[in-house]
Amino acid sequence: MASARARQLALTKPPGSLGRLEELAVHLAGITGSPMPRVPLKAIAVMAGDHGVVEEGVSAYPQEVTGQMIHNFVKGGAAISVLSRRVGFRLVVVDMGVRGPTPTAVLNKRVGSATGNIARGPAMNRGQAEKTLEAGCEVLEGLLEEGVDVVGTGDMGIGNTTPSSAVTAILTGNPPGRVTGPGTGLGDEDLKRKVGVVERALEVNRPDPRDPLDVLAKVGGFEMGGLAGFILAAAARRIPVVIDGFITSAAALLAVALSPTARDFLIASHRSAEPGHGVALEALGLRPLLDLGLRLGEGTGAALAFPLLDAACDLLSGMATFEEAGVSRRPQ
Amino acid sequence: MASARARQLALTKPPGSLGRLEELAVHLAGITGSPMPRVPLKAIAVMAGDHGVVEEGVSAYPQEVTGQMIHNFVKGGAAISVLSRRVGFRLVVVDMGVRGPTPTAVLNKRVGSATGNIARGPAMNRGQAEKTLEAGCEVLEGLLEEGVDVVGTGDMGIGNTTPSSAVTAILTGNPPGRVTGPGTGLGDEDLKRKVGVVERALEVNRPDPRDPLDVLAKVGGFEMGGLAGFILAAAARRIPVVIDGFITSAAALLAVALSPTARDFLIASHRSAEPGHGVALEALGLRPLLDLGLRLGEGTGAALAFPLLDAACDLLSGMATFEEAGVSRRPQ
Repeated sequence: MASARARQLALTKPPGSLGRLEELAVHLAGITGSPMPRVPLKAIAVMAGDHGVVEEGVSAYPQEVTGQMIHNFVKGGAAISVLSRRVGFRLVVVDMGVRGPTPTAVLNKRVGSATGNIARGPAMNRGQAEKTLEAGCEVLEGLLEEGVDVVGTGDMGIGNTTPSSAVTAILTGNPPGRVTGPGTGLGDEDLKRKVGVVERALEVNRPDPRDPLDVLAKVGGFEMGGLAGFILAAAARRIPVVIDGFITSAAALLAVALSPTARDFLIASHRSAEPGHGVALEALGLRPLLDLGLRLGEGTGAALAFPLLDAACDLLSGMATFEEAGVSRRPQ
Repeated sequence: MASARARQLALTKPPGSLGRLEELAVHLAGITGSPMPRVPLKAIAVMAGDHGVVEEGVSAYPQEVTGQMIHNFVKGGAAISVLSRRVGFRLVVVDMGVRGPTPTAVLNKRVGSATGNIARGPAMNRGQAEKTLEAGCEVLEGLLEEGVDVVGTGDMGIGNTTPSSAVTAILTGNPPGRVTGPGTGLGDEDLKRKVGVVERALEVNRPDPRDPLDVLAKVGGFEMGGLAGFILAAAARRIPVVIDGFITSAAALLAVALSPTARDFLIASHRSAEPGHGVALEALGLRPLLDLGLRLGEGTGAALAFPLLDAACDLLSGMATFEEAGVSRRPQ
């Protein structure tokens, strides 16, 4: 990082004039251990799961949409599929526990078939929570074998903003009302009910904030656990992890609660329109690169941030220094 | 635009969940007149000029850096050169009035050799101001012949934040102190002096805010005039113009003062760290896509926004509809 920082000062631009891109290149140098980092091979893992809590009416869409959207990912019609072709990254869709069958092109890491309804009991048992973390690690290890340089996180799961709100409330110490939002588009009345469901989930399950595995098991989701494991494995292997929206930031909160050093390997792609996302990013101490009012998930924010990583790396390595270009430096 | 808006609602995502990217695609549909716009061929015109006002000590860098940086652009070592290779756009460097000779790879549209010192008199005469606008139109027409689909604006000129502050102050009705910033990196004392220089430029020249050509001639710059002409010609040809930082937004203020409908063809790439930039964008009624603390100019912000335009267009045209993908719509 010191070497990258020194080079930034030698390049033909006023010091600091590339703003966040200078910080980003220095950050990537630190994560990868390379003074001139590059991240050519990219992948996004979209982890999918279903949620028992949808029976409380917390989503604007019916549960079958999770499985339908997985087919859409595989057939190339979803937003993340379009971005995968445009931006150029490997899209890995992982079934962590979707209700019903999924196509063979999807990586099967099923830990169950939809979580339990967290408004009435735990999402899963502790053994299942451990399995989700292991599954996430395996997905990352698979991508490492393909030589991936940077990964992004994505999610799919009708109802998954509800457990994300519960996890964010517990791990950031905020009341459910502050971290619960309209998700895919609830109206005011439905949103009030959703806040009530999150409150009930915390009352019924009493997750222990000092025990992240307990939080995941009681009020989390299969895809959230998979993403937390994926993040931990990436950090352990010094692979930068670009986190996406609210669900993947809740997974990041779980990962960082399990291993605080994981935080240094995270890059926040964007701030979503979902109110809990900003709270989670603040708790993680991360500043997002983009603020485009996205609230789709799937890893779309991470995908849109990838070109900024490439630009930051190219600028650091490809710009001429004052000496090389024969440009006068600022007089001291 | 109506057709693009209707298609956004049919695509497999919650309505509005792609935020600014949905608006951007609809905007591009309106500019180009195509319900499914695409902007594959891109160009950025970096217009360069020198400024007599540097003798007042308003810049952290010496005047010869303008010419040196032009060589750096052409040799590929500048930030905008690196981004041109990474993002994929044609980089056109235009000499609008640099002191001293410039390389043959640079488009020669010289209207003079540095402007007059605006703290003591006009930057140029009215005939020269007209010529800068014509030159900018010619640059755009040349790019049109090459089949360009979208253009960005860039600038180079040591000292050019000072005339940009003067133009922004006059055209937005703000005091110089509100729209004058540290540019390439002035300290507090030097910044105070720079504000004084802008105030003097307005007192000495008394530009008429209702006569944009008078403003350009008295307190503008050659590159600013070229950029204003470039913007007007792009708008006339329904080519989207991605504006960059403070200097190119001052040029946009001049263009819109000359022809108010030009505003609808502008896309603001980013909000720079220079305080006058936010004021100019607000006056133009434009919301920037990025906020990365950039303050380099050269068109770097416009270059970084190009991938967002491509993404917005691809999402609109490439995503499956609910019907095509067999995904359940939200129940009414």
